[in-house]
Amino acid sequence: MRTSRPEAFSDGVFAIAGTLLVLELRVPAESSDLGAAVLRLWPAYVAYLVSFLTIGIIWVNHHTLLEHCKNVDRRFLYLNLLLLIAVGIVPFPTALVGQYILSEDGATPALVVYGLGGILIAIAFTGVFLYATHDQRLVGDRAAARRIRDEGRLFPIGLAAYTIGIALAFVAPLASLAVYGLTALFYALPLLPLPARESR
Amino acid sequence: MRTSRPEAFSDGVFAIAGTLLVLELRVPAESSDLGAAVLRLWPAYVAYLVSFLTIGIIWVNHHTLLEHCKNVDRRFLYLNLLLLIAVGIVPFPTALVGQYILSEDGATPALVVYGLGGILIAIAFTGVFLYATHDQRLVGDRAAARRIRDEGRLFPIGLAAYTIGIALAFVAPLASLAVYGLTALFYALPLLPLPARESR
Amino acid sequence: MRTSRPEAFSDGVFAIAGTLLVLELRVPAESSDLGAAVLRLWPAYVAYLVSFLTIGIIWVNHHTLLEHCKNVDRRFLYLNLLLLIAVGIVPFPTALVGQYILSEDGATPALVVYGLGGILIAIAFTGVFLYATHDQRLVGDRAAARRIRDEGRLFPIGLAAYTIGIALAFVAPLASLAVYGLTALFYALPLLPLPARESR
Amino acid sequence: MRTSRPEAFSDGVFAIAGTLLVLELRVPAESSDLGAAVLRLWPAYVAYLVSFLTIGIIWVNHHTLLEHCKNVDRRFLYLNLLLLIAVGIVPFPTALVGQYILSEDGATPALVVYGLGGILIAIAFTGVFLYATHDQRLVGDRAAARRIRDEGRLFPIGLAAYTIGIALAFVAPLASLAVYGLTALFYALPLLPLPARESR
Repeated sequence: MRTSRPEAFSDGVFAIAGTLLVLELRVPAESSDLGAAVLRLWPAYVAYLVSFLTIGIIWVNHHTLLEHCKNVDRRFLYLNLLLLIAVGIVPFPTALVGQYILSEDGATPALVVYGLGGILIAIAFTGVFLYATHDQRLVGDRAAARRIRDEGRLFPIGLAAYTIGIALAFVAPLASLAVYGLTALFYALPLLPLPARESR
Repeated sequence: MRTSRPEAFSDGVFAIAGTLLVLELRVPAESSDLGAAVLRLWPAYVAYLVSFLTIGIIWVNHHTLLEHCKNVDRRFLYLNLLLLIAVGIVPFPTALVGQYILSEDGATPALVVYGLGGILIAIAFTGVFLYATHDQRLVGDRAAARRIRDEGRLFPIGLAAYTIGIALAFVAPLASLAVYGLTALFYALPLLPLPARESR
Repeated sequence: MRTSRPEAFSDGVFAIAGTLLVLELRVPAESSDLGAAVLRLWPAYVAYLVSFLTIGIIWVNHHTLLEHCKNVDRRFLYLNLLLLIAVGIVPFPTALVGQYILSEDGATPALVVYGLGGILIAIAFTGVFLYATHDQRLVGDRAAARRIRDEGRLFPIGLAAYTIGIALAFVAPLASLAVYGLTALFYALPLLPLPARESR
Repeated sequence: MRTSRPEAFSDGVFAIAGTLLVLELRVPAESSDLGAAVLRLWPAYVAYLVSFLTIGIIWVNHHTLLEHCKNVDRRFLYLNLLLLIAVGIVPFPTALVGQYILSEDGATPALVVYGLGGILIAIAFTGVFLYATHDQRLVGDRAAARRIRDEGRLFPIGLAAYTIGIALAFVAPLASLAVYGLTALFYALPLLPLPARESR
């Protein structure tokens, strides 16, 4: 099977999940001091940024993986579907965090749900990733497969980071959100010094 | 006509219909016990999962069908449009089920509407499928056409499954939803042992 | 300029505008007689069907036009953007019609707005269409350009049909909606007997 | 890395951000004088038009830039992601402006937020643009790179225009919105006389 349509379907879900996040930025109902009301929405802006970054960076990694796949099979499509289902849910925990991170009672459950969503995505991505690279199944080139698998060692770190974020949700909500944002950046940063290897 | 743009348009509708499902996960309005409120939304999560799986697996089958089509004609595009109209409506019955499956009076109509939506999709898919494979019209390769048509025998089973789900809606709502979920998995599972045939 | 990205952007807007229509099917708030409440939404289902059909059939015609274009220029992209802006607004009049077609006072303005939206789309499509086919500007093949232009004679009929629909909005709202639906089908039907000419 | 998937992901976000704008056109709740209520929404229509035009014209420029890129690297993808995050937020300031531009107290903050959103996009676009064209990094052809960079001189003008719009928000809200609309047209107009250069 060609990889072009799985890419198109995945790109669609990634792009929509990211862009739907804006619907959680609700226009304040009061106009008497709209400026202050808009500023008070800052947690929703931060949540929007963290989630869009997370989705975008997962997309970059997904893109890199599929670019090395010669073809895909049905099992891959179903594993990929689980990943998309996990990514598609992101607007919900994002809305929870944006709305409740400053609430005394609501911040902890909101951030726990956010972290659990991140863990779901990490597990699903690892499944897609291991299936595609194992035994040169879909990635034909042995060197590329090894290099991609080496990057895959980063996944346990992601799982650990989300677990730390969940633990922090109980004591320091803003620190928990910071961990989620830094986790996204972590997956972007280590690869930044090596763009030359990626270009053709 | 090339198949690339019908694929892109169809991929778009499938991806959007799946990703819009998340908008039915409404952020609870109470913060005093947000954790419990989020847990009480479990029927909406199950409905999200079942519907996204259903859409994703229809997409895989649509993808497989179009991959074997050399070209498409206008009649195919209109039949395909009816399929997309049916798929695009999925977020509505999903919201009904997520909101009312635990309600004494609302569960039955919600699940009946969901099943009727499934039957609409099954009929539209069968139309697209038969049109494309009949008489090697769009699928040029005779062997591929026969193999695809053999898979098509599974459609009456789908129709029967949705009818059972509708009947169960009157006596056991959760069993009805389980049937809808298993129907989606049924279309994924029988093909799982044979991924090698699909790969190039 | 290649036609692939304008196609992708246009396909995205068409697919999203169609699929967003489902958000106007609002889940009824009462569960005591949900079945009846869901049935009472029938005008919204009809409006969903008419609008998705309209968007889908415009898409088919847009697809056919661009398939014959060797390349596009910036002017074409801006004309196409006006078309997409007109198509993107469709969910709004659709929601108006779905909600107010049975209201004594609201039906007429809702259907007038719907018809004006249709006229906007017809004008924008004609602009795109004439620009692309005039003087073999973008459609290189002379015979294809002539055949496409011949189809273009159908556009005044569309304008007339929407005008009739607007007039009917003042005396017979349901007849007005029927005219809008038949207009969409009109653009699909005359080409149905000739699929062979379209296939490659 | 191929440019096709970044294009698909970007096209998706542009198309979705544009099409989601329609969700801010809220169906009026009163049916007694629906016609007048729909007319009173005119600021929302203007905001829809200005924002869709802005997004569409950014898309055309993004399209032109990427068409000249032979390949992209990871750094480009991350800069592009920042641009998409900025574009994806557009529906929020658009809703603010559509709802509050006629409000005595709300117009100024709504238009300031809109202008700040425009500045964010201008900065992000400039980053993507300079990265891609600097030192023939991604644009291989020297002449094309120079011509594209020449067009880039227009960006400071955009920044200035948005700053003027923000200043006008404090004294003349409608003039401020007019400046935002003219800024979008400015990026479309200067290139209109030269479509021949763009065609292949």
